[in-house]
Amino acid sequence: MTFENVEQLSINTIRFLSADAIEKANSGHPGLPLGAAPAGYVLFSKILKHNPKNPAWANRDRFVLSAGHGSMLLYSLLNLTGYSEPTIEDIKNFRQWNSKTPGHPENTVTPAIEVTTGPLGQGLANSVGLAAAERHLAARFNKPGLEIVDNYTYCLVGDGCLMEGISSEAASLAGHLGLEKLIVLYDDNHVTIDGSTDLAFSENIKGRFESFGWQVLEVADGDTDINAIEAALKDAKADKNRPSLIKIRTTIGYGCTAKQGSSDAHGAPLGKDNIIEMRKNLNWNFETFEIPEEVKSHMSKVADAGSKAEAKWTSLVNDYKSKYPEDYKNYINQLSDDLPEGWDSNLPKYSVDSKPMATRGQSGIVLNELAKHFKGLFGGSADLSPSNQTYIKSSGDFQKGSYENQNLRFGVREHAMGAICNGIALHKSGMIPYCATFLVFADYMRNAIRMSALSKAGVIYIFTHDSVAVGEDGPTHQPVEHVASLRLIPDLCVIRPADGNEVSGAYKIAIQNRHRPTVLILTRQNVPILQNSDADKVSKGGYIIKDCNGTPDIILIGTGSEVQLCIKAADKLVTEGINARVVSLPSWDIFESQSSEYKESVLPSSIDKRLSVEAGSRFGWNEYTGNKGDSISIDRFGASAPGDECLHNFGFTVENVLERAKKLLK
Amino acid sequence: MTFENVEQLSINTIRFLSADAIEKANSGHPGLPLGAAPAGYVLFSKILKHNPKNPAWANRDRFVLSAGHGSMLLYSLLNLTGYSEPTIEDIKNFRQWNSKTPGHPENTVTPAIEVTTGPLGQGLANSVGLAAAERHLAARFNKPGLEIVDNYTYCLVGDGCLMEGISSEAASLAGHLGLEKLIVLYDDNHVTIDGSTDLAFSENIKGRFESFGWQVLEVADGDTDINAIEAALKDAKADKNRPSLIKIRTTIGYGCTAKQGSSDAHGAPLGKDNIIEMRKNLNWNFETFEIPEEVKSHMSKVADAGSKAEAKWTSLVNDYKSKYPEDYKNYINQLSDDLPEGWDSNLPKYSVDSKPMATRGQSGIVLNELAKHFKGLFGGSADLSPSNQTYIKSSGDFQKGSYENQNLRFGVREHAMGAICNGIALHKSGMIPYCATFLVFADYMRNAIRMSALSKAGVIYIFTHDSVAVGEDGPTHQPVEHVASLRLIPDLCVIRPADGNEVSGAYKIAIQNRHRPTVLILTRQNVPILQNSDADKVSKGGYIIKDCNGTPDIILIGTGSEVQLCIKAADKLVTEGINARVVSLPSWDIFESQSSEYKESVLPSSIDKRLSVEAGSRFGWNEYTGNKGDSISIDRFGASAPGDECLHNFGFTVENVLERAKKLLK
Repeated sequence: MTFENVEQLSINTIRFLSADAIEKANSGHPGLPLGAAPAGYVLFSKILKHNPKNPAWANRDRFVLSAGHGSMLLYSLLNLTGYSEPTIEDIKNFRQWNSKTPGHPENTVTPAIEVTTGPLGQGLANSVGLAAAERHLAARFNKPGLEIVDNYTYCLVGDGCLMEGISSEAASLAGHLGLEKLIVLYDDNHVTIDGSTDLAFSENIKGRFESFGWQVLEVADGDTDINAIEAALKDAKADKNRPSLIKIRTTIGYGCTAKQGSSDAHGAPLGKDNIIEMRKNLNWNFETFEIPEEVKSHMSKVADAGSKAEAKWTSLVNDYKSKYPEDYKNYINQLSDDLPEGWDSNLPKYSVDSKPMATRGQSGIVLNELAKHFKGLFGGSADLSPSNQTYIKSSGDFQKGSYENQNLRFGVREHAMGAICNGIALHKSGMIPYCATFLVFADYMRNAIRMSALSKAGVIYIFTHDSVAVGEDGPTHQPVEHVASLRLIPDLCVIRPADGNEVSGAYKIAIQNRHRPTVLILTRQNVPILQNSDADKVSKGGYIIKDCNGTPDIILIGTGSEVQLCIKAADKLVTEGINARVVSLPSWDIFESQSSEYKESVLPSSIDKRLSVEAGSRFGWNEYTGNKGDSISIDRFGASAPGDECLHNFGFTVENVLERAKKLLK
Repeated sequence: MTFENVEQLSINTIRFLSADAIEKANSGHPGLPLGAAPAGYVLFSKILKHNPKNPAWANRDRFVLSAGHGSMLLYSLLNLTGYSEPTIEDIKNFRQWNSKTPGHPENTVTPAIEVTTGPLGQGLANSVGLAAAERHLAARFNKPGLEIVDNYTYCLVGDGCLMEGISSEAASLAGHLGLEKLIVLYDDNHVTIDGSTDLAFSENIKGRFESFGWQVLEVADGDTDINAIEAALKDAKADKNRPSLIKIRTTIGYGCTAKQGSSDAHGAPLGKDNIIEMRKNLNWNFETFEIPEEVKSHMSKVADAGSKAEAKWTSLVNDYKSKYPEDYKNYINQLSDDLPEGWDSNLPKYSVDSKPMATRGQSGIVLNELAKHFKGLFGGSADLSPSNQTYIKSSGDFQKGSYENQNLRFGVREHAMGAICNGIALHKSGMIPYCATFLVFADYMRNAIRMSALSKAGVIYIFTHDSVAVGEDGPTHQPVEHVASLRLIPDLCVIRPADGNEVSGAYKIAIQNRHRPTVLILTRQNVPILQNSDADKVSKGGYIIKDCNGTPDIILIGTGSEVQLCIKAADKLVTEGINARVVSLPSWDIFESQSSEYKESVLPSSIDKRLSVEAGSRFGWNEYTGNKGDSISIDRFGASAPGDECLHNFGFTVENVLERAKKLLK
């Protein structure tokens, strides 16, 4: 068999593995794997620097299937190039409960999957994060002739990814930053679910990406011209200034004559008869799920080359170790998720005499303290650095020519910001990505936050300006339902600290959450330091910040800036002979994970007069206040007026807390 | 005073009104009003077809301040050109509680404000909707020589708007559709909050918009060259094929030497001393909030011209009326929010014998029935028409050359889709915009949905594939927290119908909600028609769908596809001598708005054994189930497997409902 023939056979193996798995599952998206099989084959067998025997190799090139619905392309490639998973059995279990081959690729399920994709455009933005992480580490660690960090990031996108706004945000930033090692393959098949791209997507992609500062290359026939694909990938790698987009013209569902080139090929199994016809058409004479011996033998070279590549890198790292032992130590420490000794010993502590400060301000102080210990603390704000107070003063801007710096200027691009941070986290090199905006604009990046949680990315989200206390900017800028809406996302750690001590405690948790995202909810306005506020107790999610003598008549439960109102109200209640306990509840999810004994000790079930005070939606509070409790909350949009006046008019005063507490006790 | 002088004086009046109001409020964004005052002046006094004496004139040009933080520019322009509001008193009350001049423009507060803006990029997408509505109405109603619909849509954007992904989505679609009457003024001041645009935004905007199919014009000196601004606006109007972007180079904070050209000018009052200096610098010799008499007299011509323009249009419409009386009647009906007689008389009704169907399928049937009555029913899906079943079969695609059609192909652009629908609704011409995607991707458009509610836009959101029953596509595509997260948004009507009858009832509400957005939550999978399901009772939000003899021992509460489980479980409980009532609760917000008597009749407080069954987050359910109740819910991410298996494994079986119900009764 000629080399050309075995290459073609390998490509068709990808096609049939994909089509057969989708057929067996009776569910899936054959269009992309059939059309992009040649590009996938060239990339994985000739270009990608990877070692199938060690998917965790630190310097591997990263591949992201942004068009995640084409998962069978990736599973086929991983299997054929020698990764231990997915096995053929796994592929036969495509899209089944507990399989290693879920409908869309999930990094927490299949070892060689870098990031979880599916929601369109996310993967492209993840790739920008992966590429930024690489540039940062390279700038910090590489030495002349000893480039121990030099991986490329490849990403495959479809029309859907490019229509999504997040892809413009991410691509514009990547172009600005000159992320030369980012290479995006665009599966340009002119077809979406609704039909031809003529229906809604007639823009000039080449012009758009060139405007973003990218190199744009084109492959006229991605169905068969694998030499052109390889040449374009090499040209992409050769550009040392810009990220590259390779526009590869393909036919969706290639090989299945009944459906190819049509939206029918996109998202449903081809059908038994169509697969029979496709076998004839592509001259495929093998069993279902069979991998021809020639293909096995041919593809096994990928793993061999990968092992050699890693061995070569290991030897380079050994050279590095002997020449730069201190840098080597730092590099190894960087790659580890272990926290350096003493990292939390100087977190700020405040006494009640400390002057009132906004928790966003205290956050900025903590962030700068943490930056002393974590050179991989890396991030910034969506153009709100002065407001979010997220700038690391000991470092400069991460820009072309200064990639060693820790401050990434995201621009007004919240959605991409979140997804880029996911990519940075999932580079798995010990980076601690953080990002910031106003809490209300968490809505712009909500799917990225969800994806952090789903893919166990330890991103720190810093959301400031957390209530109607934002004031004059008015309802468009005042969060109301946002704290509750974030509490809803599974596996997301949400913390709303009450003062500086709780801010320190919140960051302690966020840093420790290396495989879970954390959201910090912070005030715009100053708040006092509270008697008995406790950084360590934030790790319990909730605690008694002020107790009374004897059994409480009522429990006041507050979070964030409203805890102070509860404490002041409790002070007054005591003078009236009412026993009031105050509970600070900065994190519901952490509190819920405590023992029932602890929870009962804080919120004894026998005490059913409970009043929650939080300047946001009451939704969910019933869980803590119960049938006989009440909530001071905001269940409408805010209003434009000075922040104090907003709080007052919405009932966030000591007087109102007192009144509502007494009403409960009647 | 020369004409040039009075023009300059008028521009400076805008500048000082803005600066003074912001100074008095001690809050606001002077940078944009100072820099964009000349563009605002030219647009409002020379180009915009508007009648300040009648802000509701149907054929007025629309203006959207997408960079909503520059609100004082707009308030100044409205006041100077003769709108009754805001008055000078209103301007003195800028950003104060209950004022007509909130921090960001709000259409529900100030009559002449077309749309509420502030969250960046939304306004540009709203403008695409406004422009699409105009093209649609023009195509339906205009006759040769009688163009009764021909308004332009102008939009002012800043760097922030253009960095947001939503602006790429919207601009790409506008270019595709060739919305020639959309003209965007780009306040190109090179400065954002973080500093120079060099930090994060170095793309070629001209190239990007040309790639989107726009005409791009440039004004080199937008600070002083008002002739160039006027010429560019005229060139923009002259292009009969493409939308236009006018890149106007301005100086942020122009005139305030201490701050101009710097991010310091952006978002804080200039300061007393700086304003004194600015007065000298711009030779301004008037009192605070004083409008020079020459300016008053000069600007009064705008209202005169506006009245004439409207009178001319009225006469045109009268001609139209006499020549095309039937079309005229239709036009007037279109503009009205009144619902045509009989619109709801043929909504589908189903009996228990009807075959099971997915509620998305029933939704498609209703939509097509409604399309017979509402030519202004206008919308579509974000490239999921076949899945969302949202295509109006009696019409074709809204495309260049076929603007009379009702199906708008949004492409994979959820965020812009929502905001475009807001624009369509807020064209206030009786259009009923709808849009659709998978429920999980509501996250991509969440701020647009919030803005619908805040701005009272009667958009219908059709979100299908509403639970883990989505199946094989897995956790990235399976909503869990989404129904709850939508219930959180103030003033948003959320309905999750249980079967075809409830779907009909849900649409009845959605259509009647002309000044409130409605979200319909629909299944992918088939569900049976339920005995006693009731379209009319959906208007109560919740109702007893199956009762028992005598006092219930337990109440099972379900929504959507889970009501069937409750009914089957109740049937079995009865055979075991347990009195079970079943409540279908399709809409929490509607149910909450009922009388306490009605609510008590459905969910008597004496019955505290209550079990909710909903395939999503339990968050919030405590409100209905109380301290002694329980919820069958999903509080983790989903999984890739066939939908039935997912439901089964997550406990959505009759057996589990029975078991959990009995556990409650123990």
